[in-house]
Amino acid sequence: MAGYTGSKDDYLKRLRRVEGQVRGIARMVDEDTYCIDILTQVSAVTKALEAVSLGLLEDHLAHCVVDAARESDEAGAAKVREAADAIARLVRS
Amino acid sequence: MAGYTGSKDDYLKRLRRVEGQVRGIARMVDEDTYCIDILTQVSAVTKALEAVSLGLLEDHLAHCVVDAARESDEAGAAKVREAADAIARLVRS
Amino acid sequence: MAGYTGSKDDYLKRLRRVEGQVRGIARMVDEDTYCIDILTQVSAVTKALEAVSLGLLEDHLAHCVVDAARESDEAGAAKVREAADAIARLVRS
Amino acid sequence: MAGYTGSKDDYLKRLRRVEGQVRGIARMVDEDTYCIDILTQVSAVTKALEAVSLGLLEDHLAHCVVDAARESDEAGAAKVREAADAIARLVRS
Repeated sequence: MAGYTGSKDDYLKRLRRVEGQVRGIARMVDEDTYCIDILTQVSAVTKALEAVSLGLLEDHLAHCVVDAARESDEAGAAKVREAADAIARLVRS
Repeated sequence: MAGYTGSKDDYLKRLRRVEGQVRGIARMVDEDTYCIDILTQVSAVTKALEAVSLGLLEDHLAHCVVDAARESDEAGAAKVREAADAIARLVRS
Repeated sequence: MAGYTGSKDDYLKRLRRVEGQVRGIARMVDEDTYCIDILTQVSAVTKALEAVSLGLLEDHLAHCVVDAARESDEAGAAKVREAADAIARLVRS
Repeated sequence: MAGYTGSKDDYLKRLRRVEGQVRGIARMVDEDTYCIDILTQVSAVTKALEAVSLGLLEDHLAHCVVDAARESDEAGAAKVREAADAIARLVRS
């Protein structure tokens, strides 16, 4: 079980939509669509992926980090460290 | 013809790779992979899409904006305005 | 006491440096420095502020969120919710 | 003269406001203000700086890049290259 297991179907649905959007962008490139219109679509996909990440992160804090905090000081500190690294990657990507 | 037409095959290849990565993330969710590992993968996809956007934007400046600047003041100003809006969306996404 | 109290002096030092950098950018603008050089400086300041935010966020998770998780389910859930909102603002800024 | 010279006073005013906001954040840290409230303020400053960057970039495209495009192919290509690098730094910061 992962922190997001309760919303698994929702994440899968969103990821399939993103997959379709990426395929749509490839089609636009193939048809020489105007650059700016492609950029708009790529920004939409990036935002959708960002929303997936923020959701997964909240689920992770709510389950894995909270559970570790209750287990022991060491377990809590390790999970916080790991979550902070993931947040940094997310902010910088 | 669009600004990126010369590198079309390269963009198509990158977008197909992104599509495969998104499918891989859905598989990870389906198999209850650890949240942090999924987040790492989503960040990788976001970075890949960002690189596509930056490439398309540079092609757009190098062709469409430069051509418009040579055509007339009005055409140049309109393309700069439009490119600036696309850059803002990219920065905020 | 706040989550970051232990590293207060370090944050204060970093914020004073950022303040000086912003003043330096104003001076560059005043002296008509080349646009690209100013942009490089603004990016450096943004990165420095981002690092401050990531540090504060980690301190917050390590102290306030961990403490709340140990207090009760409700307290933990409320702090996670609040932290997730702050992370979303950070990612989008 | 730089691309932004026409709006110099406006940029100076915005940068002084940012400087004051950063000083305000240092004061908040000094007074042990709640972490989340500080994070909100840092996000506001980052957004303000981002708006300054986007403005400077548009001015740069509208003046320096357009002028270079009219001067010669080489000059145009060099300025586009340089602008694209600045945009990449902005997107990643």
